[in-house]
Amino acid sequence: MSRDFLYNEIANGIAGQIKTGVLKSGDKLPSVRMLCEEHGISMNTAKRVFLELEAQSLIDSKPQSGYFVSRLPYLKLPLPAVSRPSARANDNEPDELTSKVYANMGNDALTLFSISAPAGELLPLAKLKKDIVQATRDLKEAGTAYEPLQGNVKLRRIVAIRSLGWGGHLHEDDLITTNGAMNAVSLCLMALGKPGDTIAMESPCYSGMLQLAISLGFKVLELPTHPVTGLEIAALKAAIPKINLCLLVPNFNTPLGSCMPDEHKKEIVALLAKHNIPLIEDDIYGDLYFGTQRPKCCKSFDKEGNVLWCSSVSKTLAPGYRVGWVAPGKYKAQLLKLKLIHAISSATIIQESVANFLGSGKYENHLRHLRRTLQSNYQHYVHAIAEYFPEGTKTSRPQGGLAIWVELSKGADTKQLYDLAIKRSISIAPGRMFTLQNQFENCMRLCIGLPWSADIRLKLKQLGQLAKSI
Amino acid sequence: MSRDFLYNEIANGIAGQIKTGVLKSGDKLPSVRMLCEEHGISMNTAKRVFLELEAQSLIDSKPQSGYFVSRLPYLKLPLPAVSRPSARANDNEPDELTSKVYANMGNDALTLFSISAPAGELLPLAKLKKDIVQATRDLKEAGTAYEPLQGNVKLRRIVAIRSLGWGGHLHEDDLITTNGAMNAVSLCLMALGKPGDTIAMESPCYSGMLQLAISLGFKVLELPTHPVTGLEIAALKAAIPKINLCLLVPNFNTPLGSCMPDEHKKEIVALLAKHNIPLIEDDIYGDLYFGTQRPKCCKSFDKEGNVLWCSSVSKTLAPGYRVGWVAPGKYKAQLLKLKLIHAISSATIIQESVANFLGSGKYENHLRHLRRTLQSNYQHYVHAIAEYFPEGTKTSRPQGGLAIWVELSKGADTKQLYDLAIKRSISIAPGRMFTLQNQFENCMRLCIGLPWSADIRLKLKQLGQLAKSI
Repeated sequence: MSRDFLYNEIANGIAGQIKTGVLKSGDKLPSVRMLCEEHGISMNTAKRVFLELEAQSLIDSKPQSGYFVSRLPYLKLPLPAVSRPSARANDNEPDELTSKVYANMGNDALTLFSISAPAGELLPLAKLKKDIVQATRDLKEAGTAYEPLQGNVKLRRIVAIRSLGWGGHLHEDDLITTNGAMNAVSLCLMALGKPGDTIAMESPCYSGMLQLAISLGFKVLELPTHPVTGLEIAALKAAIPKINLCLLVPNFNTPLGSCMPDEHKKEIVALLAKHNIPLIEDDIYGDLYFGTQRPKCCKSFDKEGNVLWCSSVSKTLAPGYRVGWVAPGKYKAQLLKLKLIHAISSATIIQESVANFLGSGKYENHLRHLRRTLQSNYQHYVHAIAEYFPEGTKTSRPQGGLAIWVELSKGADTKQLYDLAIKRSISIAPGRMFTLQNQFENCMRLCIGLPWSADIRLKLKQLGQLAKSI
Repeated sequence: MSRDFLYNEIANGIAGQIKTGVLKSGDKLPSVRMLCEEHGISMNTAKRVFLELEAQSLIDSKPQSGYFVSRLPYLKLPLPAVSRPSARANDNEPDELTSKVYANMGNDALTLFSISAPAGELLPLAKLKKDIVQATRDLKEAGTAYEPLQGNVKLRRIVAIRSLGWGGHLHEDDLITTNGAMNAVSLCLMALGKPGDTIAMESPCYSGMLQLAISLGFKVLELPTHPVTGLEIAALKAAIPKINLCLLVPNFNTPLGSCMPDEHKKEIVALLAKHNIPLIEDDIYGDLYFGTQRPKCCKSFDKEGNVLWCSSVSKTLAPGYRVGWVAPGKYKAQLLKLKLIHAISSATIIQESVANFLGSGKYENHLRHLRRTLQSNYQHYVHAIAEYFPEGTKTSRPQGGLAIWVELSKGADTKQLYDLAIKRSISIAPGRMFTLQNQFENCMRLCIGLPWSADIRLKLKQLGQLAKSI
């Protein structure tokens, strides 16, 4: 019996027991080791069983205690189907909605379901302030001088150390710091591509990536993507002859929140290396897993230096700090040249303060807390959506990250919903922002990074009522 | 008699008196008002007389006291000639030297004559630190949130207020903040040009601009430039049919330090507006004038919104802060779109702290001090060069800024000099970095932003000896 089959069978079995009430809310599940012995399976397979059940919000993990049946009632909202974008690359202009939605950024008068970022209340503000003060004291010349081109060495060192956690094995010299991850991706695209090139991405994918690709003169090939397991490998294989570059967000990508299984990552890395197609991997959500373990990255399987791993602290610690980095593998020289040209240097003080924070135990503590909050938010959101949104609504089952993808019935238009919602001071990200094709008109992304409250519930209720009205 | 003729005649007259010893070192010159009455000329003409004499290092200004004959002996080093680049645009790769030289950035073991930046000793470090601490306290959520796309409003407001000083009449809403001025220029080029376009620049010009233009797929048309008055207008006129964009550093550009007279600025702005060719103006050195008055900008004469005025605090306050901005005139929407795509947001804390500093009286105090130091450095450099460098050496006569341009005799090769000097831990910027053509092989740029000392004099002496050996 194949491993895939086994894992599905066991997960379905447990899911069935939960749904039929054999296992009850709060019940403790067997440990990973017990599950292995019970079914004669490997540790990895057992872990995948639990991850799958967590992804379906059927169980929760409690650190040092194990897995428990979720205390929230079982969710009946179905998953959206695998996306089926056109197999033709295109260079359509992104929907004008994107600019409209981003113009709301920083507007305190709105409930910003539209921006994928953790709210300030979820961030360790006092500690960050202290680290900034410390950085201005520690740095030579208070950080006013141009720093070496590759970026703050303390930050590169701690990112390298932390890479062990996802099998990265990076050295500080493998890393270049940037002004956030989008700046890293932008440098990668400029370094490796040229106008007219075709770049493969997930579909739906982050609107900023689409805008970036089009503004640099690329064509974008959107690929079918599964809401749970991410990019469909068969589609990527078929597209190989047509593409020059690949840009993926394998871990908890926005808007879907899917997480590519390790075997898929490994296979994709080998496939792209074989065809000498660089893979730009955006891993900004990787630390925000709802499960028990930080997922690996494509970079974890990169033997050829063909993966350019980009990340930042914008989704975990401080969006406004603009601190990111890239491990560009064999493309380091090109990246350094581009960084010199477009940025010269980064804001040293902020990089140093983030390095201080990451280097202390404070970051792990903060992440643990943030992950728990986001996972709980996600469950609150799904329950509010189930309660208030129209019949036929589907939602993604993110396994991490900051967003939930909501699909209304065919025919509903979330562009129209945006206009109605903004009048009630609610900003959403309509589905059209996440594609260059005619897709996802009835979808929207909602950020789950706002602290849960009666007001947020009310806003979701209002949104649901508006959705029923269109 | 034309105004130009008058001003030259009077300046030459006074210069002659200084050179022949009629006026002696330390002598006080007549006031601007007295000069007006004496010669029946306007205030503006009188001021230009003094500026010209200052540019030639014949006189010094003392705040609240007036002008005095320079205490340093008259400089006999001749000026380099007007540059004569080829009239054909090209897209040659920049000399590999540039990467080599910039790899030295932040290397404390070297004497960095190669980097155009003020040394930390010349910066108000303690005050900057305080302003950063203040900013983390004042900002909502300690600056961790994404700020509105246009950038920190306090910074935009104070830059707008200060624009009165150069006739800018900007409003905070006219400005977009960026990660330093190069980021501003890079956004301008991406917003307004496309691969294959031709962009006109001064020659020699800043190597980073050349790299940027080439990396974006532009062709560069280098234009003849006068070491004192900057771009030759006739050459620009002749080039109009060939160019799509124009990128100039009218005030104290690097490497020459030339300053375009106001009438030239006005004429160029009108010329380019007439032909609908956007003018990107990089004004990072504008506050570093050696004369008595902040020079105007091309933006001062911009009635059509055709000038994109870029600046930063990288040359005056804190290179490592990466705080810059652009007033993009009628191209604001395009710039905002590009900023969203490539940067999303800027580091709020640093922008806020710079805004605090600029808004206090501290910035003007600091600038006064910095300008005096740079002007005095310049004179020390020129005297050391006159003493130690080979016969036939020419130098520019910067009227502001951070650099001096040194031309050795024909046949000398500053690329070779670089290799010799770096072995003695001295880094210079060879002339070839500032062109895409075969020019300036016998030239180099030296930064005057290092505090003058016996050691700097020794390093210049060593450099001179090496220059004699090649």
